[in-house]
Amino acid sequence: MTLQANPTVTVFERSPDEGRGLARDMRVRWALEEVGQPYDVRPVSFAAMKEPAHRALHPFGQIPTFVDGDLSLFETGAIVLHIASHHEGLLPLDADAHARAINWMFAALGTIEPTIVDREVVLYLERSESWFEQRLRTVEDRIRGRLNDLSRRLGDADWLDGAFSAGDLMTVDVLRRLDGSGLLEEYPSLYAYVARAEARPAFNRAFDAQRAFFNAAGAM
Amino acid sequence: MTLQANPTVTVFERSPDEGRGLARDMRVRWALEEVGQPYDVRPVSFAAMKEPAHRALHPFGQIPTFVDGDLSLFETGAIVLHIASHHEGLLPLDADAHARAINWMFAALGTIEPTIVDREVVLYLERSESWFEQRLRTVEDRIRGRLNDLSRRLGDADWLDGAFSAGDLMTVDVLRRLDGSGLLEEYPSLYAYVARAEARPAFNRAFDAQRAFFNAAGAM
Repeated sequence: MTLQANPTVTVFERSPDEGRGLARDMRVRWALEEVGQPYDVRPVSFAAMKEPAHRALHPFGQIPTFVDGDLSLFETGAIVLHIASHHEGLLPLDADAHARAINWMFAALGTIEPTIVDREVVLYLERSESWFEQRLRTVEDRIRGRLNDLSRRLGDADWLDGAFSAGDLMTVDVLRRLDGSGLLEEYPSLYAYVARAEARPAFNRAFDAQRAFFNAAGAM
Repeated sequence: MTLQANPTVTVFERSPDEGRGLARDMRVRWALEEVGQPYDVRPVSFAAMKEPAHRALHPFGQIPTFVDGDLSLFETGAIVLHIASHHEGLLPLDADAHARAINWMFAALGTIEPTIVDREVVLYLERSESWFEQRLRTVEDRIRGRLNDLSRRLGDADWLDGAFSAGDLMTVDVLRRLDGSGLLEEYPSLYAYVARAEARPAFNRAFDAQRAFFNAAGAM
C-alpha cells in the first residue's frame, strides 16, 4: 500500500526545546524521512492544544498528531509503526525480527521514556520544592538503571537487533531527551549508539526541518 | 499464520498483588484467552528475575516474557500485538481501524500507565519521605488529568473505537492498576468501562488462572 497525499503532522508553534529536536514530532519527522515520505506540518499553540478542535485529534491535548487521509493517530509509537508498515526500510521482513523491532519500540516508549520524562517533571515543576535535590538524584538513578540494562543488551553491536529499525529510531529519539543531563555520557556505548543514529542522512533532514521551522517561527 | 506449540509466559513466582491480577502477565493471559490460544506459565522468583538467564529474555529484569518457538518478546505491548496479529478477534480488519486500535495500545502503555506506576512508586518507595502526602496529591492529580481526558473521549460508548479491541484490553488492564485507589470511582463511565471488560469470559478465565496459580504457590 502507498500513502496518497502528504500526511500532516502537528508540531509546537514554538518548541520549548529551542530547536534542539527534542519534542515528539522529531521521531515522526525522522521516520518519514527514513522512508522518503514527504509530509506537511501544522503548528499548534500551547493554548490551542487544549481546545476541542485539537483534542478531537489528540484526546490528551499534546503534539504530535498525524493525519493521513481519513486516518488520524496521536501516539508516536502508533504513528511510526503505521509509517513503517506502509513503507520498506524500518521493519525487517522476517516475522520474528519484525516482532522484536516492535518490541523495542514499546520498550523505548513504555520502559525507558517514562523515567526520562519523570526527570523533566522534577526539573521543570519541582525545582522550588524542598525535595528537589533528593528526588532528582532518585530519578536519575532510576534512569541509570535503565541505561545500564540497555547498554548491557546492546553490547558492542551497532543496533539493538540486526539492522537499524524503527526500534532503534524510537530508542534513540527517547535517549536524545537526556541531552544536557550528562547521563548518557556515563554509558559510552549508548552515547556512540545515539551519535551513530544522528549521523544518518534521514535524521539530519528531519533535524534541519524542525530547526528551520523553529527559526522561522522565532522570526515571525 | 497459526502458532504451533504453546507459547510460554513467565510470571511472578509469588505475585505482590496477592492474586488480584494486577501484574503485567494478566494482560498477556487475557489476550491469549480472548483468541483461544493455550499457553504455559513458568514462575520466576524476584531474585531470578535479575539473573543473566532471565535477563537474556528480559534485559530490564522484569516479567512477563513471552517465548513462542524461536521468538522471544518482553514488552506486553509487543506481546499482545503479536498475539492479536496472529489470531482474529483483537484487531479490526479495516486498515484504519486497525491502526487506531494499536494507537490505543500505545496510549495505554505510554501515556496512561506511567502516571499510574508513578503513584505506586510514591506509595511503596516514598512513604517515609517528608514529601509523601504532597507528592501523592500531585501524582493523583496527574492521573485525574489522564482519566478526565480518557472519559471525555470514551463518552457513552462501550469501547474506545467500535468493537472491543486490543486497545481496550490494554487500556482496561492499565486502569485496573488503580484498584483500591478510589480514583477510578471518580469517573463513573470509566469504572463501568472496566467492569464491562471484566465481565468478558476471557477476562474471567485469565483472572481465575492467575488466581489459581497464586493460591497454589501460596500452598507450596
